[in-house]
Amino acid sequence: MNSFGSKLILTTFGESHGRGVGCVLDGVPAGLIIDEAFIQSELDRRKPRAKAGGTAREESDRAEILSGVFEGVATGAPIAIFIANMSVKSGDYDELREVFRPSHADYSWFMKYGVRDHRGGGRSSARESAARVAGGAIAKLLLQTIGAKVESGVAAVGGVWGEAEDFEYAKNSLIFALDKDKEQAQIAAIDAAKRDLDSIGAVVKIRATGVPAGLGEPLYGKLDAKLAEAIMGINAVKAVEIGSGVAASAMRGGEHNDQMNAEGFLSANAGGVLGGVSSGADIKITAHFKPTPSIFKPQKTIDIRGAERVIAIKGRHDSCVGIRGAVVCEAMTALVIADMLLANMGSKLAHIKTIYGSK
Amino acid sequence: MNSFGSKLILTTFGESHGRGVGCVLDGVPAGLIIDEAFIQSELDRRKPRAKAGGTAREESDRAEILSGVFEGVATGAPIAIFIANMSVKSGDYDELREVFRPSHADYSWFMKYGVRDHRGGGRSSARESAARVAGGAIAKLLLQTIGAKVESGVAAVGGVWGEAEDFEYAKNSLIFALDKDKEQAQIAAIDAAKRDLDSIGAVVKIRATGVPAGLGEPLYGKLDAKLAEAIMGINAVKAVEIGSGVAASAMRGGEHNDQMNAEGFLSANAGGVLGGVSSGADIKITAHFKPTPSIFKPQKTIDIRGAERVIAIKGRHDSCVGIRGAVVCEAMTALVIADMLLANMGSKLAHIKTIYGSK
Amino acid sequence: MNSFGSKLILTTFGESHGRGVGCVLDGVPAGLIIDEAFIQSELDRRKPRAKAGGTAREESDRAEILSGVFEGVATGAPIAIFIANMSVKSGDYDELREVFRPSHADYSWFMKYGVRDHRGGGRSSARESAARVAGGAIAKLLLQTIGAKVESGVAAVGGVWGEAEDFEYAKNSLIFALDKDKEQAQIAAIDAAKRDLDSIGAVVKIRATGVPAGLGEPLYGKLDAKLAEAIMGINAVKAVEIGSGVAASAMRGGEHNDQMNAEGFLSANAGGVLGGVSSGADIKITAHFKPTPSIFKPQKTIDIRGAERVIAIKGRHDSCVGIRGAVVCEAMTALVIADMLLANMGSKLAHIKTIYGSK
Amino acid sequence: MNSFGSKLILTTFGESHGRGVGCVLDGVPAGLIIDEAFIQSELDRRKPRAKAGGTAREESDRAEILSGVFEGVATGAPIAIFIANMSVKSGDYDELREVFRPSHADYSWFMKYGVRDHRGGGRSSARESAARVAGGAIAKLLLQTIGAKVESGVAAVGGVWGEAEDFEYAKNSLIFALDKDKEQAQIAAIDAAKRDLDSIGAVVKIRATGVPAGLGEPLYGKLDAKLAEAIMGINAVKAVEIGSGVAASAMRGGEHNDQMNAEGFLSANAGGVLGGVSSGADIKITAHFKPTPSIFKPQKTIDIRGAERVIAIKGRHDSCVGIRGAVVCEAMTALVIADMLLANMGSKLAHIKTIYGSK
Repeated sequence: MNSFGSKLILTTFGESHGRGVGCVLDGVPAGLIIDEAFIQSELDRRKPRAKAGGTAREESDRAEILSGVFEGVATGAPIAIFIANMSVKSGDYDELREVFRPSHADYSWFMKYGVRDHRGGGRSSARESAARVAGGAIAKLLLQTIGAKVESGVAAVGGVWGEAEDFEYAKNSLIFALDKDKEQAQIAAIDAAKRDLDSIGAVVKIRATGVPAGLGEPLYGKLDAKLAEAIMGINAVKAVEIGSGVAASAMRGGEHNDQMNAEGFLSANAGGVLGGVSSGADIKITAHFKPTPSIFKPQKTIDIRGAERVIAIKGRHDSCVGIRGAVVCEAMTALVIADMLLANMGSKLAHIKTIYGSK
Repeated sequence: MNSFGSKLILTTFGESHGRGVGCVLDGVPAGLIIDEAFIQSELDRRKPRAKAGGTAREESDRAEILSGVFEGVATGAPIAIFIANMSVKSGDYDELREVFRPSHADYSWFMKYGVRDHRGGGRSSARESAARVAGGAIAKLLLQTIGAKVESGVAAVGGVWGEAEDFEYAKNSLIFALDKDKEQAQIAAIDAAKRDLDSIGAVVKIRATGVPAGLGEPLYGKLDAKLAEAIMGINAVKAVEIGSGVAASAMRGGEHNDQMNAEGFLSANAGGVLGGVSSGADIKITAHFKPTPSIFKPQKTIDIRGAERVIAIKGRHDSCVGIRGAVVCEAMTALVIADMLLANMGSKLAHIKTIYGSK
Repeated sequence: MNSFGSKLILTTFGESHGRGVGCVLDGVPAGLIIDEAFIQSELDRRKPRAKAGGTAREESDRAEILSGVFEGVATGAPIAIFIANMSVKSGDYDELREVFRPSHADYSWFMKYGVRDHRGGGRSSARESAARVAGGAIAKLLLQTIGAKVESGVAAVGGVWGEAEDFEYAKNSLIFALDKDKEQAQIAAIDAAKRDLDSIGAVVKIRATGVPAGLGEPLYGKLDAKLAEAIMGINAVKAVEIGSGVAASAMRGGEHNDQMNAEGFLSANAGGVLGGVSSGADIKITAHFKPTPSIFKPQKTIDIRGAERVIAIKGRHDSCVGIRGAVVCEAMTALVIADMLLANMGSKLAHIKTIYGSK
Repeated sequence: MNSFGSKLILTTFGESHGRGVGCVLDGVPAGLIIDEAFIQSELDRRKPRAKAGGTAREESDRAEILSGVFEGVATGAPIAIFIANMSVKSGDYDELREVFRPSHADYSWFMKYGVRDHRGGGRSSARESAARVAGGAIAKLLLQTIGAKVESGVAAVGGVWGEAEDFEYAKNSLIFALDKDKEQAQIAAIDAAKRDLDSIGAVVKIRATGVPAGLGEPLYGKLDAKLAEAIMGINAVKAVEIGSGVAASAMRGGEHNDQMNAEGFLSANAGGVLGGVSSGADIKITAHFKPTPSIFKPQKTIDIRGAERVIAIKGRHDSCVGIRGAVVCEAMTALVIADMLLANMGSKLAHIKTIYGSK
């Protein structure tokens, strides 16, 4: 329920306006060097960027390692990380105590649990994604040891699409833009939404390179299925594509099939996954984020007694959640691939003989 | 690996050209009436339809219940179902013994396992989906007891989109078309691809109605994440959308948010899921199928020794896998929702007191 | 619920008086040679031995492999095995339709499920253990590839203890006796119970040799905990000991601790497990079986309406379930160790680098 | 690996000489009142008792709730609890950096992970059991709502057995003795061992009352199997008995079977579990603890290079771990039963109809 993965298992806990959020990452191979500065730098990448559709909040998330690391090295024990909530203004949410914010988890979670932590969404807040990013950072460190990496960038904002897929450029872009020629237009789209007390959607692309062929557990642990689960489970994501994605449904086989020669694949429609198993080609994922549900315009809704209400949400909210969402997409992708890396060990007898010796 | 679900667990086994395929469905509540004729009728819906992009194969799948049902009623024991392979022509595949079919699982699975069952894809064949449909039929029987149901239909074939979403019409359409006005054009698109020794993609819509609010296990068992996993895991699916899906990324919050009044939601962009939990509104999913990878045109590929080859696939293959895929999408959706129905029990203390009495 | 294991997963299905029993074994490394004759010979060892406290039933169990094996080799796909019920006399159970047999699952399962398959216990029957033995046989084949093996024998029957632990002798003993000097007295104890229309308990010892150090997943997948679960889950087992077992509680540390020198451990109280992880020494388990609950003497009980009844059970029943239970203990032990063998892969970074190469 | 349970899932983290130990308890029904004082009182019961075979350490464990509770009530979100390490003297362990302590996890864990946290056993230390006790306390609160409870006491110390099973007396006994007439002799046995720089084993009995019939998930989630796993997984436990336990193997069926009349069972050999499912009778478990492996006498061992060494362990160690182990046994038993309480929901169709309404 609050755990993810089969061999590399991320369990998260915490709420947006409680003590903090945290994670326990279980299954990290003993001997992995845990670079704390890298974990912190990943959290910093997820920080709100006021000028880029982020909130005005100052979230200086500090990752505190509670266990599992001894003298800088993973011991094989679960690695717990805690990120204290620093800047918590629960007061902003007082008037939400009994009102459901449209397009938020408020209504459905109240139907499920019958109690609620109304302060900023509590557990359902995107703040929890800080714990994913911390866990994902360790997954990235593991992938690094075999030469694999995961990158991301923003392809579109509110329908303004870029064409280039420049993952290097995205790293330093204010909005993680993949196409520098469209970056200003995309920023303008965010600003316009903000001026209108509104929010805006975005499209994120994720790419994993250096992933060995053979990862993914057929038939109910397929790599693409697990990636879809991981990405769709991120707050605000409404669609996930692998490789050619939605375009595939309009194509013919002769056009879509990636033929091969001795050098490798002649095209890249599969997105690096064939039959649910990685092919060794780059893994390509596209995530579609809805606009932030918290907007400052008045909206119709109901309260916990079913009475009709009008609310204009206050507080500090990203006007484009997709931007910071890119960092979370990377983390979840890294966790899935690292998990599959471990899960694949033992898929063939040769692995057993290599590790244990044969007799 | 070959199991799906947390409380209602489907395990499948079998290959396309072996003895048959089957499933074990564990967690079916004792007392559920198991309507064998309904299970069979679901398998019949999945059968290839020669005139509708299906193969020329005669697949008269018979579901044989091996366990878990006594005097027509589920006993609480696992329900095993076996579907023997009747019409197996392995010979068609002899020349594939060492060649990887483009866009198939052949290459990646060989990299994973180091051995292969080349006969029609073996385990990776879409034939396994018969076992999913059998299991899904029982999930549907369970959902029926609380008034929930799952339907599907084909929205587009090769880029020819319908507009209507007539799930009743789809039930009797040769290609499960949702829009009768576009049905002929869609059939024509399939026929044209077939004439060209090619195949074609399709879009399937799935709708679940009567699903109670509160289903979905935050944060790593979210209903939409599990649906995305389930649908993306079906052979040939390359993209999954929930509710507004890809369109969401081009929208603003004021437009996308589903406001509420005392009667319920005023729009349906969420697709029935808020914060990963069902809201009580209809659940809406869109699945994008790539064109069947098996085409009769010559294609470039390599063999297991890396040598370049050209193959023109023989045998019997659907020219549009998306059509029959609709039935599989329904089955997987029903399995996810039924699983979440069970998983949700105990989410609040009131459930415990209702079942066990309070002291 | 009906699945066991984390990486090597055994799912079983079937009932004593239905179509048969079966298993699906998932996670078998591709490339393992599946010796069908060996699987059959393991099932034969579990067959009732009329002269040795077994039933008079002729159970000629035939293991039929339904999937996962191609040309004699595991493909990585789930291996399904079916064992049809041949000699089913449900009629013997007609009078049990509404009566709970003392010390059987009848009462508690009826409280759980509200329906029942009264024919010989249905799913709760020890017949299901045939599926365990079939799955365990494949686990043994896997262990064999690294030089590990699992053996068992009967140490005591109804309080008549042997002293020798001759696992070789046990293999050919009618009652799997570990001590040939006590074998006749133990057989006599069984015969006496039978003459008295009664049954009798037994103690089984299990030994695993050649198991590499390092198996077991701390802290909630400890090897000894998983073995205890596996053995206690066998029908009729009431106690499980590892190494020194119950004797440990009467000892002092100076006496119990296994000191070490350069050759290895100087004693064997640990039973091959330290801190939940295998030490490389022989793994030693003791299982205590209660007497068969089905006896022919009249006994007081109630029926499903709560009315008091007296029953004298009919039919064919082992008078000492512990004898055949030894074979099941071996199977479960082999499954646990093989599962841990796979689960351990990836416990240290060196494994990752060995399998995937380091960069 | 570091998680336990299927629906109520305890994940623990932390080491004996790191920042602290903690747990995340997932699946707690929303609405449960979380009595922090009770959690603390359970931790206090586990504290070392200098006069009762405990260490001289001052362990004032404070449970700090990090998440999942809002205004005193469980929200349905995971409950994280952290217990900081207060009194950490790693220096005591410096000479153990390279030496394996006999009968400890040191050797086997080093073989598994290749790295080690030598400070007091790190993750393998019994200190982790504080996290189990914290989680178990919440399980007890849940059981309380349906009138079930779990108690324990010490039946024997070093072979000195009591006869009475007075669980009320045990609560206030210095050594949790079940038989007040043997309490002094048992304390004397501990003192004698301590004087001899040695340690001593113990037997703990656990009883659960008020548990409804029907709990336990056949066939691989049986209640007795899960209890055996839970108890055997506690540090130093070498044997687990349910009901009649080892005695069963010397009995005849006529003697062992618990006959029934309209009032209930006429004897209690089953220990409250039939066919792996609770019968409604008291659940009875016996756990056998080995003597504490840390003794102050010189012992032969080897170091990480295989060289022979002699060590006399220093530091603060319980001389009879079984005493405090009783509290941990209670916690694990409560966790198993609470987990099964949740897992059982949905076992029959009537549950579904009760919770969701039938149509």
